[in-house]
Amino acid sequence: MSASRIGLDSLRAKVMSAEDAATLIDPGSTVGMSGFTGSGYPKAVPMALASRIEAEHAAGNPFRLRVWTGASTGPELDGALAKADGIEFRLPYNSDPIARDKINRGEMDYFDMHLSQVAPMAWQGFLGPLDTAIIEVSGIRPDGSLIPSSSVGNNKTWIDRASKVILEVNRWQNPALEGMHDIYYGTALPPNRVPIPLVRPDDRIGEAYFRCDPAKVVAVVETDSPDRNLPFDAPGEDHRAIAGHLLEFFRHEVARGRLPASLLPLQSGVGNIANAVMSGLVDGPFDNLTAYTEVLQDGMLELMEAGKLLTASATAFSLSPQAAAALNADMARFRDRLVLRPQEISNHPEVIRRLGCIAMNGMIEADIHGAVNSTHLMGSRIQNGIGGSGDFARNAYVSIFMAPSTAKGGKISTIVPKAPHVDHINQDVQILVTEQGLADLRGLSPRQRAEVIIENCSHPDYRPALKDYLARARRDSYGQQSPTLLNEAFAWHQRFVETGDMRG
Amino acid sequence: MSASRIGLDSLRAKVMSAEDAATLIDPGSTVGMSGFTGSGYPKAVPMALASRIEAEHAAGNPFRLRVWTGASTGPELDGALAKADGIEFRLPYNSDPIARDKINRGEMDYFDMHLSQVAPMAWQGFLGPLDTAIIEVSGIRPDGSLIPSSSVGNNKTWIDRASKVILEVNRWQNPALEGMHDIYYGTALPPNRVPIPLVRPDDRIGEAYFRCDPAKVVAVVETDSPDRNLPFDAPGEDHRAIAGHLLEFFRHEVARGRLPASLLPLQSGVGNIANAVMSGLVDGPFDNLTAYTEVLQDGMLELMEAGKLLTASATAFSLSPQAAAALNADMARFRDRLVLRPQEISNHPEVIRRLGCIAMNGMIEADIHGAVNSTHLMGSRIQNGIGGSGDFARNAYVSIFMAPSTAKGGKISTIVPKAPHVDHINQDVQILVTEQGLADLRGLSPRQRAEVIIENCSHPDYRPALKDYLARARRDSYGQQSPTLLNEAFAWHQRFVETGDMRG
Repeated sequence: MSASRIGLDSLRAKVMSAEDAATLIDPGSTVGMSGFTGSGYPKAVPMALASRIEAEHAAGNPFRLRVWTGASTGPELDGALAKADGIEFRLPYNSDPIARDKINRGEMDYFDMHLSQVAPMAWQGFLGPLDTAIIEVSGIRPDGSLIPSSSVGNNKTWIDRASKVILEVNRWQNPALEGMHDIYYGTALPPNRVPIPLVRPDDRIGEAYFRCDPAKVVAVVETDSPDRNLPFDAPGEDHRAIAGHLLEFFRHEVARGRLPASLLPLQSGVGNIANAVMSGLVDGPFDNLTAYTEVLQDGMLELMEAGKLLTASATAFSLSPQAAAALNADMARFRDRLVLRPQEISNHPEVIRRLGCIAMNGMIEADIHGAVNSTHLMGSRIQNGIGGSGDFARNAYVSIFMAPSTAKGGKISTIVPKAPHVDHINQDVQILVTEQGLADLRGLSPRQRAEVIIENCSHPDYRPALKDYLARARRDSYGQQSPTLLNEAFAWHQRFVETGDMRG
Repeated sequence: MSASRIGLDSLRAKVMSAEDAATLIDPGSTVGMSGFTGSGYPKAVPMALASRIEAEHAAGNPFRLRVWTGASTGPELDGALAKADGIEFRLPYNSDPIARDKINRGEMDYFDMHLSQVAPMAWQGFLGPLDTAIIEVSGIRPDGSLIPSSSVGNNKTWIDRASKVILEVNRWQNPALEGMHDIYYGTALPPNRVPIPLVRPDDRIGEAYFRCDPAKVVAVVETDSPDRNLPFDAPGEDHRAIAGHLLEFFRHEVARGRLPASLLPLQSGVGNIANAVMSGLVDGPFDNLTAYTEVLQDGMLELMEAGKLLTASATAFSLSPQAAAALNADMARFRDRLVLRPQEISNHPEVIRRLGCIAMNGMIEADIHGAVNSTHLMGSRIQNGIGGSGDFARNAYVSIFMAPSTAKGGKISTIVPKAPHVDHINQDVQILVTEQGLADLRGLSPRQRAEVIIENCSHPDYRPALKDYLARARRDSYGQQSPTLLNEAFAWHQRFVETGDMRG
């Protein structure tokens, strides 16, 4: 079985244990790993590397790495390496709880980047040299090309840019993945860039495999390990209410002639609300849907099984164990309707603007003027990262952000006087949705936005206080374009930090 | 002379006074005007409209308009209409002082938009219907097509979308402008968008004229009036220092192989610093430069005259009276090296990313984590608007923001603990420059950025206080990804509002 996954003799000769492979990585070096939303990340070498780092630390030797990935990985990578205190610097996205704690204690430097910009900036040399790529693949072909795994992410760029390559060949990955991927090799550094020839979400513009010079491969490690595949909670009442408001909005836009009857390519962030929206679309009036998104979740596959979604393009899967099993059982059928691309293309501003994606992303909070914080709790503690939300929100046909109107059992309001960290400026936020309702902010001034947001989206427990703040800001603010009271803009957040509750 | 500028009989028959034309505009309607950075805006009809509005107001009749433009116009448009209290809602950019005061007193609603998004959102129907277009042209051809004026802006879209069109034919505009423009007619609504076939800054992908159905033209008004053409101040010492740091950075990047020897297409914001940078490039080591920018200023023409700049693409001129005279004297020679395009194309994310522009924009302030405020003084009072800075900053090869390290004679620090309004999130800010120095933020975490920004860019009068703030934030912040002290983040701004000085 393993032999069939490694089709090239010269690479079969480089098969070794994860422990041996881990010795090929130098302290202080930069490692580019595969992995996106818990899919397709290397599972053996990072664990072995973490053990090696712990041993070196125990022996009094410093050993930390700079770690680049596609996006989030799994406990065997970010968790293990962070626990071993083996990561000095991390980009472009993390959702691992151990790494998050290290970052928020100031023990690990972390730069969350627009996901579309990682590969170009690596090519431009802005991020420094890349020493080693550690890439999970689902197979190696006789010509040395690589069959990608369940995510593509930045793998093409890591393989091309790294001085040496370590491959994990994971036989857990379904061999029928072969042919699903579309690896575009037409990117270049300016002034040699040309249009990306993609005009439909399911266009295939590249190759099904990664090119890889076998001479650069220093180790091949065989694995048989599942992706992270966390279970999704069933959508709650709030999530279903948000989905309901959004579907009503789509119906309204189609009726007004501002959206085609089959909508436009859907982009959907990761999480339960996104899944609830997809579930809502299963029963909705919209047919012949398409998706051009970052991640394929359970809801997207459900929508496809229901015959509503024709095709979907992404850079990775992020499935529950049940959905992963269902997909694996029927991969050949899904393969022709799904495309996995490099994240540089799945998230490319050019393509998103051209296709006119409907961007649907979650948020931590929005302020009364419509600026959105997607990343930092209380303005300083990072949760995950900006991910691809900026790529999509700024270039979308319509940019939607959604969340329940409160968090922590009502102790946090999602609508606040001022966002203490801004990921999406108000120009990039056209629609806000909470379970309370939907605010259509298109073409409104900040003062107009404030009224609509408070009225339609805020929780009744916080609405009077927001109205009071706005009324006083409209009286006392230094300027009236975006009324603000500087000395109490963050009072709610400060109160939460001090008492655990934003309410007075 | 005037006859020669109106080549179509049926439109010559519609020549009338500005006063008569102004009667064709209804109270409460939406008017799309030409005009971008004080160039090519209508000069007679808005003045007549303002008089009419004043008379109606004196008679007790309400009369206000929704006014859309390309960007800023001139006193005859924004100034006159704002003074008459004739603008209810304004987009996408304003720099008129009278209109600014109305906005900041809460008497006029204003939505500053990404300039690339105005035309698409108008087509998408998100901004409401457009009743009348008032467009300055430099001539009407026998076939009814229109020779554009000194700016293109959103004129194509206003002409196409408006129910009726009023033309101002301005004989002050140089007839040799004819042939300089490139009006692209290949845009569409999704799902019918295709790649924009522009791969070099000077590619011509459209037509030299606006198409216009003569049946939609309800009035033609002849004018002979100069553009705003404000004089530029000579660059001060701080501006020259900023330019010096930036040129040193370019040399360094070329030496490291991260920029070609002829750099990449330059985008430059409007103002004295931008002009100082262009002047610096005149004496610099870089040849065969190109520009893909929004506005052509004095410095850009100077660079062209010096033989350093080969070609430049923009959507408008913004020249001093001297530079305008020099350009007019030699227009035929410049015409083949300059291209004026619709702002949808000059600022298009697809094209900016493809060309790899070097984006250089001014700012009001930056915070220690690198978030930039370009628009709101003290977080609430708008100065001008975001303009095209977001289009360029997010999609640039490298995004640079610059300003002197203090303003108001030292009473305001440009580097602050936290920006009270964010136009450019830290991911979109790679380089910060003040006269103190340059901070290269590429690939740094927020904590690392804070150290470099304070050290390299802040003014020595404020540096100790910034270091003290950062040290305490690194001790007391809720999270350490982006250390922040919520209860004093805006203390400097609050102090300025109360005392007129950020210093204690």
